[in-house]
Amino acid sequence: MTITLEDMVKGKIRSIADFPKPGIMFRDITTAIKDAETLQIIIDYLCDAFKDEKIDYIAGIESRGFIFGMPMAYKLGCGFVPVRKPNKLPAETLSQEYELEYGTDKIEIHKDAFGAGDNVLIIDDLLATGGTAEAAAKLVKKSGAKLVGMGFLIELEALNGRNKLPDDCKIVSMLKY
Amino acid sequence: MTITLEDMVKGKIRSIADFPKPGIMFRDITTAIKDAETLQIIIDYLCDAFKDEKIDYIAGIESRGFIFGMPMAYKLGCGFVPVRKPNKLPAETLSQEYELEYGTDKIEIHKDAFGAGDNVLIIDDLLATGGTAEAAAKLVKKSGAKLVGMGFLIELEALNGRNKLPDDCKIVSMLKY
Repeated sequence: MTITLEDMVKGKIRSIADFPKPGIMFRDITTAIKDAETLQIIIDYLCDAFKDEKIDYIAGIESRGFIFGMPMAYKLGCGFVPVRKPNKLPAETLSQEYELEYGTDKIEIHKDAFGAGDNVLIIDDLLATGGTAEAAAKLVKKSGAKLVGMGFLIELEALNGRNKLPDDCKIVSMLKY
Repeated sequence: MTITLEDMVKGKIRSIADFPKPGIMFRDITTAIKDAETLQIIIDYLCDAFKDEKIDYIAGIESRGFIFGMPMAYKLGCGFVPVRKPNKLPAETLSQEYELEYGTDKIEIHKDAFGAGDNVLIIDDLLATGGTAEAAAKLVKKSGAKLVGMGFLIELEALNGRNKLPDDCKIVSMLKY
Protein backbone atom coordinates (compact mmCIF):
# COMPACT_ATOMS: atom_id res chain seq x y z
CA MET A 1 0.00 0.00 0.00
CA THR A 2 1.48 3.32 -1.02
CA ILE A 3 -0.17 6.67 -0.69
CA THR A 4 0.46 9.09 -3.54
CA LEU A 5 0.90 12.87 -3.28
CA GLU A 6 -2.38 13.19 -5.16
CA ASP A 7 -4.20 11.08 -2.53
CA MET A 8 -2.65 13.14 0.28
CA VAL A 9 -3.86 16.38 -1.27
CA LYS A 10 -7.30 14.94 -2.07
CA GLY A 11 -7.59 14.08 1.60
CA LYS A 12 -7.30 17.80 2.39
CA ILE A 13 -9.96 18.99 -0.10
CA ARG A 14 -13.34 19.50 1.55
CA SER A 15 -16.40 18.46 -0.49
CA ILE A 16 -19.56 20.48 0.14
CA ALA A 17 -22.87 19.38 -1.37
CA ASP A 18 -25.26 21.83 -3.05
CA PHE A 19 -22.90 24.85 -3.22
CA PRO A 20 -23.23 27.33 -4.86
CA LYS A 21 -26.53 25.73 -5.92
CA PRO A 22 -28.47 22.47 -5.57
CA GLY A 23 -26.90 19.49 -7.33
CA ILE A 24 -23.33 20.86 -7.33
CA MET A 25 -20.62 19.12 -5.28
CA PHE A 26 -18.22 21.95 -4.48
CA ARG A 27 -14.55 21.06 -4.05
CA ASP A 28 -13.28 23.45 -1.38
CA ILE A 29 -9.56 24.17 -1.74
CA THR A 30 -9.35 26.40 1.37
CA THR A 31 -8.84 23.38 3.64
CA ALA A 32 -5.89 22.28 1.46
CA ILE A 33 -4.05 25.62 1.36
CA LYS A 34 -4.51 26.35 5.05
CA ASP A 35 -2.34 23.29 5.65
CA ALA A 36 1.27 24.46 5.22
CA GLU A 37 2.60 21.10 4.01
CA THR A 38 -0.20 20.56 1.49
CA LEU A 39 0.34 24.09 0.12
CA GLN A 40 4.02 23.24 -0.55
CA ILE A 41 3.12 19.90 -2.19
CA ILE A 42 0.61 21.49 -4.57
CA ILE A 43 2.90 24.32 -5.70
CA ASP A 44 5.93 22.04 -6.09
CA TYR A 45 3.88 19.47 -8.07
CA LEU A 46 2.56 22.04 -10.54
CA CYS A 47 5.96 23.74 -10.92
CA ASP A 48 7.62 20.40 -11.54
CA ALA A 49 5.11 19.56 -14.27
CA PHE A 50 6.15 22.64 -16.28
CA LYS A 51 9.80 23.03 -15.29
CA ASP A 52 11.10 22.25 -18.81
CA GLU A 53 8.80 24.65 -20.67
CA LYS A 54 10.92 27.83 -20.29
CA ILE A 55 7.99 29.85 -18.93
CA ASP A 56 8.27 33.65 -19.28
CA TYR A 57 4.90 34.43 -17.69
CA ILE A 58 2.26 32.72 -15.65
CA ALA A 59 -1.23 33.99 -16.42
CA GLY A 60 -3.49 33.35 -13.41
CA ILE A 61 -7.27 33.47 -13.82
CA GLU A 62 -9.17 35.59 -11.23
CA SER A 63 -9.32 34.87 -8.41
CA ARG A 64 -8.26 31.35 -7.38
CA GLY A 65 -5.82 31.26 -10.29
CA PHE A 66 -3.97 34.04 -8.45
CA ILE A 67 -3.71 31.76 -5.42
CA PHE A 68 -1.84 29.03 -7.28
CA GLY A 69 -0.22 31.06 -10.06
CA MET A 70 1.70 33.61 -7.98
CA PRO A 71 3.70 31.19 -5.81
CA MET A 72 4.51 29.24 -9.00
CA ALA A 73 5.82 32.45 -10.62
CA TYR A 74 7.88 33.11 -7.49
CA LYS A 75 9.34 29.61 -7.53
CA LEU A 76 9.90 29.39 -11.30
CA GLY A 77 11.40 32.91 -11.41
CA CYS A 78 9.04 34.25 -14.08
CA GLY A 79 6.57 37.16 -14.30
CA PHE A 80 2.88 37.00 -13.35
CA VAL A 81 -0.04 38.39 -15.35
CA PRO A 82 -3.56 38.51 -13.87
CA VAL A 83 -6.45 37.50 -16.14
CA ARG A 84 -9.30 39.57 -14.72
CA LYS A 85 -13.03 40.12 -14.81
CA PRO A 86 -14.15 43.20 -16.78
CA ASN A 87 -13.32 46.75 -15.61
CA LYS A 88 -10.71 45.73 -13.05
CA LEU A 89 -7.58 46.43 -15.12
CA PRO A 90 -6.70 50.14 -15.35
CA ALA A 91 -4.84 50.30 -18.70
CA GLU A 92 -5.82 49.26 -22.24
CA THR A 93 -7.06 45.66 -22.41
CA LEU A 94 -7.71 42.73 -24.72
CA SER A 95 -10.90 40.90 -23.85
CA GLN A 96 -12.55 37.59 -24.65
CA GLU A 97 -16.18 36.55 -24.19
CA TYR A 98 -17.29 33.11 -23.08
CA GLU A 99 -20.60 31.35 -22.59
CA LEU A 100 -22.25 30.82 -19.24
CA GLU A 101 -25.24 28.58 -18.56
CA TYR A 102 -27.38 31.70 -19.06
CA GLY A 103 -25.77 34.52 -21.04
CA THR A 104 -22.10 35.41 -21.48
CA ASP A 105 -19.22 36.84 -19.47
CA LYS A 106 -15.80 38.30 -20.32
CA ILE A 107 -12.22 38.12 -19.14
CA GLU A 108 -9.42 40.61 -19.84
CA ILE A 109 -5.65 41.07 -19.84
CA HIS A 110 -3.63 44.22 -20.32
CA LYS A 111 -2.77 44.76 -23.99
CA ASP A 112 0.92 45.16 -23.07
CA ALA A 113 1.01 42.16 -20.71
CA PHE A 114 3.04 39.89 -23.02
CA GLY A 115 5.53 40.42 -25.83
CA ALA A 116 5.33 38.54 -29.15
CA GLY A 117 6.54 34.96 -28.77
CA ASP A 118 6.73 34.99 -24.95
CA ASN A 119 6.07 31.57 -23.40
CA VAL A 120 2.93 31.68 -21.28
CA LEU A 121 1.51 29.14 -18.81
CA ILE A 122 -2.16 29.56 -17.77
CA ILE A 123 -3.02 28.53 -14.19
CA ASP A 124 -6.41 28.11 -12.51
CA ASP A 125 -7.71 26.09 -9.59
CA LEU A 126 -10.38 24.16 -11.48
CA LEU A 127 -11.03 22.77 -14.97
CA ALA A 128 -14.80 22.20 -15.12
CA THR A 129 -16.73 22.89 -18.36
CA GLY A 130 -13.64 24.64 -19.72
CA GLY A 131 -15.35 27.88 -20.74
CA THR A 132 -13.09 30.26 -18.82
CA ALA A 133 -9.94 28.29 -19.58
CA GLU A 134 -10.76 28.25 -23.29
CA ALA A 135 -11.31 32.03 -23.23
CA ALA A 136 -7.99 32.55 -21.41
CA ALA A 137 -6.20 30.44 -24.03
CA LYS A 138 -7.74 32.56 -26.81
CA LEU A 139 -6.68 35.76 -25.01
CA VAL A 140 -3.05 34.61 -24.78
CA LYS A 141 -2.99 33.67 -28.47
CA LYS A 142 -4.67 36.97 -29.44
CA SER A 143 -1.88 38.84 -27.62
CA GLY A 144 0.78 37.31 -29.88
CA ALA A 145 2.37 35.29 -27.06
CA LYS A 146 2.88 31.51 -27.21
CA LEU A 147 0.67 29.37 -24.98
CA VAL A 148 2.92 26.53 -23.79
CA GLY A 149 0.82 25.04 -21.03
CA MET A 150 -2.27 25.05 -18.85
CA GLY A 151 -2.24 23.82 -15.26
CA PHE A 152 -5.09 23.14 -12.82
CA LEU A 153 -5.25 21.80 -9.30
CA ILE A 154 -8.55 19.99 -9.97
CA GLU A 155 -10.17 18.56 -13.12
CA LEU A 156 -13.82 17.44 -13.14
CA GLU A 157 -13.44 14.80 -15.86
CA ALA A 158 -17.15 14.15 -16.42
CA LEU A 159 -17.58 17.72 -17.73
CA ASN A 160 -15.10 17.18 -20.59
CA GLY A 161 -13.56 20.66 -20.26
CA ARG A 162 -10.30 19.36 -21.71
CA ASN A 163 -11.97 18.94 -25.12
CA LYS A 164 -12.33 22.72 -25.40
CA LEU A 165 -8.64 23.42 -24.77
CA PRO A 166 -5.93 23.78 -27.44
CA ASP A 167 -4.22 20.49 -28.42
CA ASP A 168 -0.83 22.13 -29.04
CA CYS A 169 0.11 22.80 -25.41
CA LYS A 170 0.78 20.70 -22.31
CA ILE A 171 -2.28 20.36 -20.04
CA VAL A 172 -1.84 19.12 -16.46
CA SER A 173 -4.31 18.68 -13.62
CA MET A 174 -3.09 17.34 -10.28
CA LEU A 175 -6.40 15.91 -8.95
CA LYS A 176 -9.09 14.20 -11.01
CA TYR A 177 -12.68 13.77 -9.86
CA MET B 1 23.98 57.98 -5.19
CA THR B 2 22.40 54.73 -4.14
CA ILE B 3 19.15 53.35 -5.40
CA THR B 4 17.05 51.50 -2.83
CA LEU B 5 14.94 48.37 -3.40
CA GLU B 6 11.90 50.56 -2.71
CA ASP B 7 12.92 52.99 -5.49
CA MET B 8 13.49 50.09 -7.90
CA VAL B 9 10.02 48.69 -7.25
CA LYS B 10 8.40 52.15 -7.40
CA GLY B 11 9.96 52.52 -10.85
CA LYS B 12 7.91 49.49 -11.97
CA ILE B 13 4.55 50.67 -10.60
CA ARG B 14 2.45 52.35 -13.29
CA SER B 15 0.40 55.39 -12.25
CA ILE B 16 -2.88 55.90 -14.10
CA ALA B 17 -4.88 59.10 -13.61
CA ASP B 18 -8.66 59.07 -13.12
CA PHE B 19 -9.12 55.31 -12.57
CA PRO B 20 -11.51 53.90 -11.47
CA LYS B 21 -13.05 57.41 -11.31
CA PRO B 22 -12.07 61.06 -11.86
CA GLY B 23 -9.59 62.44 -9.32
CA ILE B 24 -8.09 59.06 -8.35
CA MET B 25 -4.43 58.31 -9.19
CA PHE B 26 -4.42 54.51 -9.51
CA ARG B 27 -1.18 52.69 -8.63
CA ASP B 28 -1.06 49.75 -11.05
CA ILE B 29 0.86 46.79 -9.60
CA THR B 30 0.52 44.63 -12.74
CA THR B 31 3.60 46.23 -14.31
CA ALA B 32 5.62 45.35 -11.18
CA ILE B 33 4.63 41.69 -10.92
CA LYS B 34 5.01 40.99 -14.64
CA ASP B 35 8.71 41.72 -14.11
CA ALA B 36 10.23 38.52 -12.72
CA GLU B 37 12.99 40.28 -10.74
CA THR B 38 10.63 42.84 -9.20
CA LEU B 39 8.22 40.06 -8.18
CA GLN B 40 11.07 38.33 -6.28
CA ILE B 41 12.15 41.60 -4.61
CA ILE B 42 8.62 42.37 -3.35
CA ILE B 43 7.94 38.91 -1.91
CA ASP B 44 11.40 38.66 -0.30
CA TYR B 45 11.08 42.15 1.22
CA LEU B 46 7.69 41.44 2.80
CA CYS B 47 8.74 37.98 4.03
CA ASP B 48 11.89 39.42 5.56
CA ALA B 49 9.86 42.06 7.44
CA PHE B 50 7.89 39.34 9.26
CA LYS B 51 10.42 36.49 9.45
CA ASP B 52 10.70 36.67 13.26
CA GLU B 53 6.95 36.64 13.97
CA LYS B 54 6.40 32.84 13.88
CA ILE B 55 3.52 33.13 11.43
CA ASP B 56 1.06 30.19 11.37
CA TYR B 57 -1.23 31.63 8.70
CA ILE B 58 -1.22 34.40 6.15
CA ALA B 59 -4.68 35.87 5.60
CA GLY B 60 -4.83 37.46 2.12
CA ILE B 61 -7.60 39.92 1.31
CA GLU B 62 -9.48 39.29 -1.99
CA SER B 63 -8.18 39.57 -4.59
CA ARG B 64 -4.82 41.35 -4.78
CA GLY B 65 -4.01 40.16 -1.26
CA PHE B 66 -4.03 36.64 -2.76
CA ILE B 67 -1.36 37.78 -5.23
CA PHE B 68 1.12 38.79 -2.53
CA GLY B 69 -0.01 36.57 0.34
CA MET B 70 0.26 33.15 -1.33
CA PRO B 71 3.92 33.33 -2.43
CA MET B 72 4.73 34.63 1.06
CA ALA B 73 2.97 31.61 2.61
CA TYR B 74 4.93 29.35 0.24
CA LYS B 75 8.24 30.97 1.18
CA LEU B 76 7.55 31.23 4.93
CA GLY B 77 6.19 27.67 5.07
CA CYS B 78 2.87 28.57 6.65
CA GLY B 79 -0.81 28.10 5.71
CA PHE B 80 -2.91 30.54 3.67
CA VAL B 81 -6.45 31.70 4.43
CA PRO B 82 -8.44 33.75 1.90
CA VAL B 83 -10.45 36.71 3.23
CA ARG B 84 -13.27 36.88 0.73
CA LYS B 85 -16.21 38.95 -0.45
CA PRO B 86 -19.63 37.66 0.66
CA ASN B 87 -21.05 34.36 -0.64
CA LYS B 88 -17.77 33.04 -2.07
CA LEU B 89 -16.80 30.72 0.79
CA PRO B 90 -18.74 27.42 0.84
CA ALA B 91 -18.65 26.50 4.55
CA GLU B 92 -19.76 28.37 7.68
CA THR B 93 -18.25 31.87 7.91
CA LEU B 94 -17.50 34.77 10.24
CA SER B 95 -18.19 38.12 8.63
CA GLN B 96 -17.36 41.76 9.27
CA GLU B 97 -18.99 44.86 7.82
CA TYR B 98 -17.09 47.99 6.84
CA GLU B 99 -18.04 51.44 5.56
CA LEU B 100 -17.75 52.49 1.95
CA GLU B 101 -18.06 56.03 0.63
CA TYR B 102 -21.74 55.21 0.04
CA GLY B 103 -23.14 52.31 2.07
CA THR B 104 -21.38 49.28 3.53
CA ASP B 105 -19.71 46.07 2.37
CA LYS B 106 -18.65 42.83 4.07
CA ILE B 107 -15.72 40.43 4.13
CA GLU B 108 -15.68 36.84 5.37
CA ILE B 109 -13.44 33.99 6.51
CA HIS B 110 -14.33 30.39 7.22
CA LYS B 111 -15.26 29.90 10.87
CA ASP B 112 -12.74 27.04 11.14
CA ALA B 113 -9.93 28.89 9.36
CA PHE B 114 -7.79 29.51 12.44
CA GLY B 115 -7.37 27.83 15.80
CA ALA B 116 -7.31 29.78 19.08
CA GLY B 117 -4.00 31.57 19.55
CA ASP B 118 -2.67 30.95 16.02
CA ASN B 119 -0.35 33.71 14.80
CA VAL B 120 -1.88 35.43 11.77
CA LEU B 121 -0.38 37.93 9.32
CA ILE B 122 -2.81 39.92 7.14
CA ILE B 123 -1.58 40.81 3.63
CA ASP B 124 -3.04 43.17 1.02
CA ASP B 125 -1.65 45.16 -1.88
CA LEU B 126 -2.80 48.58 -0.71
CA LEU B 127 -3.43 50.47 2.52
CA ALA B 128 -5.65 53.41 1.54
CA THR B 129 -8.45 54.59 3.88
CA GLY B 130 -7.95 51.41 5.91
CA GLY B 131 -11.58 50.29 5.93
CA THR B 132 -11.00 46.79 4.54
CA ALA B 133 -7.81 46.25 6.50
CA GLU B 134 -9.52 47.29 9.75
CA ALA B 135 -12.37 44.85 9.03
CA ALA B 136 -9.90 42.05 8.30
CA ALA B 137 -8.11 42.74 11.62
CA LYS B 138 -11.45 42.56 13.47
CA LEU B 139 -12.27 39.25 11.71
CA VAL B 140 -9.00 37.67 12.79
CA LYS B 141 -9.50 38.78 16.41
CA LYS B 142 -13.14 37.60 16.35
CA SER B 143 -11.90 34.14 15.30
CA GLY B 144 -9.80 33.79 18.47
CA ALA B 145 -6.49 33.87 16.58
CA LYS B 146 -3.69 36.34 17.36
CA LEU B 147 -3.05 39.10 14.83
CA VAL B 148 0.72 39.55 14.79
CA GLY B 149 1.18 41.71 11.70
CA MET B 150 -0.24 43.48 8.67
CA GLY B 151 1.75 43.91 5.45
CA PHE B 152 1.04 46.00 2.35
CA LEU B 153 2.94 46.64 -0.84
CA ILE B 154 1.69 50.26 -1.02
CA GLU B 155 0.53 52.77 1.59
CA LEU B 156 -1.20 56.03 0.60
CA GLU B 157 -0.07 58.05 3.59
CA ALA B 158 -2.32 61.07 3.03
CA LEU B 159 -5.38 58.89 3.67
CA ASN B 160 -4.26 58.01 7.23
CA GLY B 161 -5.44 54.38 6.97
CA ARG B 162 -2.81 53.36 9.53
CA ASN B 163 -4.76 55.20 12.25
CA LYS B 164 -7.60 52.67 11.90
CA LEU B 165 -5.35 49.64 12.43
CA PRO B 166 -4.61 47.92 15.75
CA ASP B 167 -1.58 49.33 17.60
CA ASP B 168 -0.57 45.96 19.07
CA CYS B 169 0.77 44.38 15.88
CA LYS B 170 3.59 45.10 13.43
CA ILE B 171 2.48 47.10 10.38
CA VAL B 172 4.74 47.26 7.32
CA SER B 173 4.27 48.87 3.92
CA MET B 174 7.03 48.63 1.33
CA LEU B 175 6.18 51.70 -0.78
CA LYS B 176 4.83 54.99 0.52
CA TYR B 177 3.04 57.57 -1.65
